[in-house]
Amino acid sequence: MPMAYDNPCPTERTWPTPFRVLVCAMSNSENVSDTEAYSTPSPFPVRITPLTGLPEVAPDDDLARLLVEAAKRQRLVLRQGDVFVVAQKIVSKAEGRIVRLDSIEPSERAKRWAAEYHKDPRVIELVLREASSIVRMERGVVIAKTRDGFVCANAGVDISNTPQGTALLLPENPDRSARTLQEQLARTFGVHVSVIISDTFGRPWREGLVNVALGVAGMTPLLDYRGQHDPHGKMLQATVIALADELAAAGGLVMGKLDCVPAAVVQGVMMPEGSGSGRDLIRPAERDLFR
Amino acid sequence: MPMAYDNPCPTERTWPTPFRVLVCAMSNSENVSDTEAYSTPSPFPVRITPLTGLPEVAPDDDLARLLVEAAKRQRLVLRQGDVFVVAQKIVSKAEGRIVRLDSIEPSERAKRWAAEYHKDPRVIELVLREASSIVRMERGVVIAKTRDGFVCANAGVDISNTPQGTALLLPENPDRSARTLQEQLARTFGVHVSVIISDTFGRPWREGLVNVALGVAGMTPLLDYRGQHDPHGKMLQATVIALADELAAAGGLVMGKLDCVPAAVVQGVMMPEGSGSGRDLIRPAERDLFR
Repeated sequence: MPMAYDNPCPTERTWPTPFRVLVCAMSNSENVSDTEAYSTPSPFPVRITPLTGLPEVAPDDDLARLLVEAAKRQRLVLRQGDVFVVAQKIVSKAEGRIVRLDSIEPSERAKRWAAEYHKDPRVIELVLREASSIVRMERGVVIAKTRDGFVCANAGVDISNTPQGTALLLPENPDRSARTLQEQLARTFGVHVSVIISDTFGRPWREGLVNVALGVAGMTPLLDYRGQHDPHGKMLQATVIALADELAAAGGLVMGKLDCVPAAVVQGVMMPEGSGSGRDLIRPAERDLFR
Repeated sequence: MPMAYDNPCPTERTWPTPFRVLVCAMSNSENVSDTEAYSTPSPFPVRITPLTGLPEVAPDDDLARLLVEAAKRQRLVLRQGDVFVVAQKIVSKAEGRIVRLDSIEPSERAKRWAAEYHKDPRVIELVLREASSIVRMERGVVIAKTRDGFVCANAGVDISNTPQGTALLLPENPDRSARTLQEQLARTFGVHVSVIISDTFGRPWREGLVNVALGVAGMTPLLDYRGQHDPHGKMLQATVIALADELAAAGGLVMGKLDCVPAAVVQGVMMPEGSGSGRDLIRPAERDLFR
């Protein structure tokens, strides 16, 4: 049943007040005034550049320096608001979160479960140690909450992309890791850049992993549209966008699992000014229907 | 405890066999041979362009034509493998999935629940009609499985960004919608483009919504790395990446909730050849630990 509506999209419109065109990569728009930038639809594409050629990261490596060198090799011009998406793996490696499995003595519980599902009991032991609580442990899958509050497979313990006989743990505090990197990168480049420490997580109900944000620094991870009005004048009630997760996913498009691209730079995303942490993305248990 | 490792990232490496550099937007690499393309790290950025200036979409509008016109206005050069991410809202509007709320007679169940949580009983009635099953219905939130198998808030029924007094339902068959658009766009541009029909969904455990793929055409939605070997020679066991969801999330970076950007074009993503549907992204109930 066709209905006719007025076009609620104004040709000349203003951006919602909290938003600023922080970055317009791919354009020469730095000198555009706020008013001009707000009053036209964003014609600026977002650009995601893989950071390539990083060496294998080892404990105590200066990760910021490695990222800076990679960006310079690629002649990347960093601008205010650019976002570094950095794979958790290289952060964990730089922070020495590598565990030799032969140093792990599995508990009876880990042994029983590992035997039932043909897993390495030492890895299961690590998972149990990293977990603050087990959300599901069945059919060979452990979904656990980490001490930081992330709910993910194996409490983030990973045995892929690490040397044989070792496992990699999540960074002890991804937000702290992000802050440290962010400060070093901002200082080196002389502009305000943001950092997201990312990992690929599974989701209930949907197949496949997506890259999500664990640690966040230098930006607000959630875009809150609540209380703003859509073009039809209706107030938005429930719209909070997980910007940092969308940025991590976008970075994931160039950060393959096999191809030694452990970081990406996302440029040109319109971001509100603000700060926050990866912790903001973790839903408190009392608001979560699926624990 | 620092450990030293050999760098497992070969400088001269080959891409995993199923992968092809389908698109290298931002570069003049179309004539690069497969061998050359595989043997160097991808220096090609991914580019996400918002499609702006679309009119308010009404039932029976030719959506493909509107997208083509927008792309042409922006002088976008489409290449093989480019991905159109199209917001479900404009697809639903074009398909006439708009319901006048005054045509809805709420059931007693809908009335009771709506009264308890101060909701519009007609909207709740629509949600119950659209749902094939209710996953959670508590604290004012309805998480439901749609007939297509998507688990999401309100079974996809949306009252924002639609005219007053109306609600918008998900497309009847997002994969069919994607296929139709994909065929029309590919024909018009004369190259193989892909289409993702997207919507913003919440997730358990994490705050905020992210853009995900409902309908998919012209591409494989899942990148399956299982059986491939990481740089350390370990076989990957569980790594399947939800490429279509990462593409949808990347599109979400330029598709604001308020700013009348209902579509985006993602260019430059290395994609394997293949086909599939949005349905591939829905985890079958028997493999899901969270129903």
